[in-house]
Amino acid sequence: MSAIDEILEANRAFAKSFEPGPARAPRVAVVLCMDARIDPIRALGLPYGTANIIRTAGGRVVDALRSLSVSQAVLGSSEVAIVHHTECGMATMDDAGMRAKLDERGLAAPEGFVFHTFRDLEQSLHEDVAVYRASAMVRQDVPVRTFVYDVATGALREVA
Amino acid sequence: MSAIDEILEANRAFAKSFEPGPARAPRVAVVLCMDARIDPIRALGLPYGTANIIRTAGGRVVDALRSLSVSQAVLGSSEVAIVHHTECGMATMDDAGMRAKLDERGLAAPEGFVFHTFRDLEQSLHEDVAVYRASAMVRQDVPVRTFVYDVATGALREVA
Repeated sequence: MSAIDEILEANRAFAKSFEPGPARAPRVAVVLCMDARIDPIRALGLPYGTANIIRTAGGRVVDALRSLSVSQAVLGSSEVAIVHHTECGMATMDDAGMRAKLDERGLAAPEGFVFHTFRDLEQSLHEDVAVYRASAMVRQDVPVRTFVYDVATGALREVA
Repeated sequence: MSAIDEILEANRAFAKSFEPGPARAPRVAVVLCMDARIDPIRALGLPYGTANIIRTAGGRVVDALRSLSVSQAVLGSSEVAIVHHTECGMATMDDAGMRAKLDERGLAAPEGFVFHTFRDLEQSLHEDVAVYRASAMVRQDVPVRTFVYDVATGALREVA
């Protein structure tokens, strides 16, 4: 069975006993990786309705700015958490490696495209705070805190 | 207590009993909204390790292409599900409304910036398939299926 057909089957069971939670306003926007091993709602204990969860390859902020802006300006969130994680696929190669991987599949990125790979988790977090700070679309008067999530232990560590 | 301090407290409890699941390769990439009411892992029944979950405002594909490319070329996923949802904040206003909301907070978007609001869920899904189809960074030889998630019932409906 295809993964998507399995999703449809699982959703039929889910919807049978579904009850929406209480209406609440999001307090925090969390940016983290799309990694298949991370369950942010469980790992970070995010109650129904309270967190906008933005997920991108590597948890990089570069393609989260539109979403962060909407979360803050439209939905009213007023804290930001940026979470990168151990064993991240984005830390296994550089842009040349990415292009080689795409080429193997017959794919190609536009000239000059940057994949936002990284080598060091603290550096990638610092870079992403800088990307956040450079944007006029997001609030500079709210806490922006950064974390490393360890996929082996489930533990979150704050990075100053 | 701040939302992020609550996250740290919840994570300490989570990590105490954490056990990573079995190592598996992602089969599917799911693009969906950052909405605070959606718990994709529960709603779509996504087993540990099997789904890259990309979340953006509205579940719009425009800022998911880098992530989709990495999911397919590096991690090997070979199905795509794009999920938009009822009662989406991105369907409540147009770009002028977005700019007014940002302005209320002292924020501003770059000239020409598009927020990718929408009015009709089936149309937004069709647009996003077109965005996907126009990219050479993502596989055109895999299923790309589109869904509406109903936040009131928890049910997923496929849109042709």
